[in-house]
Amino acid sequence: MFKNVSVTLEKVRKEKPVVHHITNWVTIYDCANVVKVFGASPVMAHAKEEVAEMAGIASALVLNIGTLTSEMVDSMKIAAAAANKKGIPVVFDVCGAGATKFRDEKCFEILDSVKVNVIKGNSSEVARIAGENVRTKGVDAVSVDKDLVSIAKSLAEDRKCTVVITGKQDIVTNGSKVYIVKNGHDMMAKIVGTGCMAASVIGAFCAVEKDHASASARGLACYEIAAELAVAGSKGPGSFKEILFDAIYNLDGTTADKMASISISE
Amino acid sequence: MFKNVSVTLEKVRKEKPVVHHITNWVTIYDCANVVKVFGASPVMAHAKEEVAEMAGIASALVLNIGTLTSEMVDSMKIAAAAANKKGIPVVFDVCGAGATKFRDEKCFEILDSVKVNVIKGNSSEVARIAGENVRTKGVDAVSVDKDLVSIAKSLAEDRKCTVVITGKQDIVTNGSKVYIVKNGHDMMAKIVGTGCMAASVIGAFCAVEKDHASASARGLACYEIAAELAVAGSKGPGSFKEILFDAIYNLDGTTADKMASISISE
Amino acid sequence: MFKNVSVTLEKVRKEKPVVHHITNWVTIYDCANVVKVFGASPVMAHAKEEVAEMAGIASALVLNIGTLTSEMVDSMKIAAAAANKKGIPVVFDVCGAGATKFRDEKCFEILDSVKVNVIKGNSSEVARIAGENVRTKGVDAVSVDKDLVSIAKSLAEDRKCTVVITGKQDIVTNGSKVYIVKNGHDMMAKIVGTGCMAASVIGAFCAVEKDHASASARGLACYEIAAELAVAGSKGPGSFKEILFDAIYNLDGTTADKMASISISE
Repeated sequence: MFKNVSVTLEKVRKEKPVVHHITNWVTIYDCANVVKVFGASPVMAHAKEEVAEMAGIASALVLNIGTLTSEMVDSMKIAAAAANKKGIPVVFDVCGAGATKFRDEKCFEILDSVKVNVIKGNSSEVARIAGENVRTKGVDAVSVDKDLVSIAKSLAEDRKCTVVITGKQDIVTNGSKVYIVKNGHDMMAKIVGTGCMAASVIGAFCAVEKDHASASARGLACYEIAAELAVAGSKGPGSFKEILFDAIYNLDGTTADKMASISISE
Repeated sequence: MFKNVSVTLEKVRKEKPVVHHITNWVTIYDCANVVKVFGASPVMAHAKEEVAEMAGIASALVLNIGTLTSEMVDSMKIAAAAANKKGIPVVFDVCGAGATKFRDEKCFEILDSVKVNVIKGNSSEVARIAGENVRTKGVDAVSVDKDLVSIAKSLAEDRKCTVVITGKQDIVTNGSKVYIVKNGHDMMAKIVGTGCMAASVIGAFCAVEKDHASASARGLACYEIAAELAVAGSKGPGSFKEILFDAIYNLDGTTADKMASISISE
Repeated sequence: MFKNVSVTLEKVRKEKPVVHHITNWVTIYDCANVVKVFGASPVMAHAKEEVAEMAGIASALVLNIGTLTSEMVDSMKIAAAAANKKGIPVVFDVCGAGATKFRDEKCFEILDSVKVNVIKGNSSEVARIAGENVRTKGVDAVSVDKDLVSIAKSLAEDRKCTVVITGKQDIVTNGSKVYIVKNGHDMMAKIVGTGCMAASVIGAFCAVEKDHASASARGLACYEIAAELAVAGSKGPGSFKEILFDAIYNLDGTTADKMASISISE
């Protein structure tokens, strides 16, 4: 078991990395805010004229195609190229991949033209990016027949990156090591925004730790531990989400290490 | 009195219809989330390249012109044409109609070029669409001198659709039957988003019930009953809105049927 | 000490001014909602075809470049020209000024082509607009070496407007009078949106009071007093923000006058 998650949590809080997002219009507030309550500094900017310079003052770049347009994808590529040049991690949430041909094409366009360090999505989104013939039901996952760990590992090897599949148990792999994060709560799936926020958390954690697979696993564990704590104090998905921000802000490192449930295999 | 609202509520929860939105940037999260806590599956997508395909995997399409641009309206028309072809309901929230000439023109452009199944707005918005000479004060309703039921009926007949006027009492009509939904609470008007969410709820309910007038009335009743329950537990509009999501998620069918207050006339 | 803040608060509640915003996609909901819970009427519209007409039915215009594009800035200039013509106040939140060259250029383009009545930002944003050589860290303030009151006064004189620098203590000046607003709480800096909302509050207060410096000081004090009250009932930044909306809505004029902490110097 891999327990020491607070080491990266404390680094995020101390270094307060700027996390530049080009993301969707639905959960843009949540993405910014989750980074903020973790103690880091979000910035959202998508004009093609400034994204390279903004990525240049950031410590991580998070891309999310939830409400993509061609122009937004162009900005994403410019920002990611600047991030690549600077050597900061690029996290790509392939939100809705598998729902339309346009999304699939734009995902591959991004993946083929810039270096992405972490690909993140739910089971059917990531399966689609890995070449499987699945159709995502909008932005909600559909069940995938194949073994998800194998899909993730093979995609990580192909793209030479870290792959994260979120779900009841999250799979995080760099192609060799596989982390299974078992924290979290079903309530996270009952509200809009928890998936997008996961990518932002991964961005903040990868900003301060070079091993992106362990950083992603630690970030997800901290986030989901806070969710477990928040559910206890909530009466439904509405109050849950507000209390989640409180719980992240108040998350104590010792508690996080104690509650972390991550298994590793090679 | 029309009491049986839970039959459609339970269908929404069981069938989990995908509700595709092209909506405004202010309340886009709320629109997605209200659909989610009702147990359905929201998807927001507005790129002209994908809206037809996205509507094609959906069971309802919700359009809202709150922060319209010409490009967004073009996407709305493409999506609505695809929805028409597939035979899924199109709900149109004429948000801010009557505030500017541009909004009025774009509303009529949409209504004249595609089939809209439910037109929804507040009193002055709908009156404007029905051809009355009223000026909306931004997005807040101004009082309308004429009889609203007559305006709604005549618009429903003209456009061969269901018309919903939200307010202290909601008017829902298909031109012959008129439902008056008396649920809800003044607090709903004290916070941004409740009007937009009403259209999304109507979308989710019309996705699973072919009679759009009764589906709209049932959806509004369930939503507003949850609001009544939420007000009891809240201390102001901020806490009200979070608790509203809890109350929708926790809404029990028997309670809904007991609290529903809908009158019908022909 | 300047205590009488409720006089403007009550005017906002009574006159319910329409506050037109062209703002960013991150906090657009918060900006609309803070205006709403203060009792005024927000409207968000950015299409170049309608912004002049929308500003024409408004009593104040709030511009925020948090997620600017060239097109948005064009709409801002059209709206501001209409606001100037009508004689309603224009509040400009120079969000992220100093972060990229593009933002700086667009800020000056706006300031040089239309009349802005209130320039608002954090210390490094306003310092940058005043010509200082500072680099904003995304949208979070960096420390500025020079005396902020002098910077604000000199900018107010140069641009013949009111300048607001938000922070632990807010500086408000029209170039001669200087108001220091000492209300508020550190928790406001722990959550996304409080800075943007401050500009919206200023817009609502300036809509009903011609002396923009005192209106801004009063608006900030009311808003920050509500924040002080909200912190007492909250368990972290998530619950704080919801309770803040409750506290604004429930803010009693007598309490506001009692708690107001504003010093004035000439």
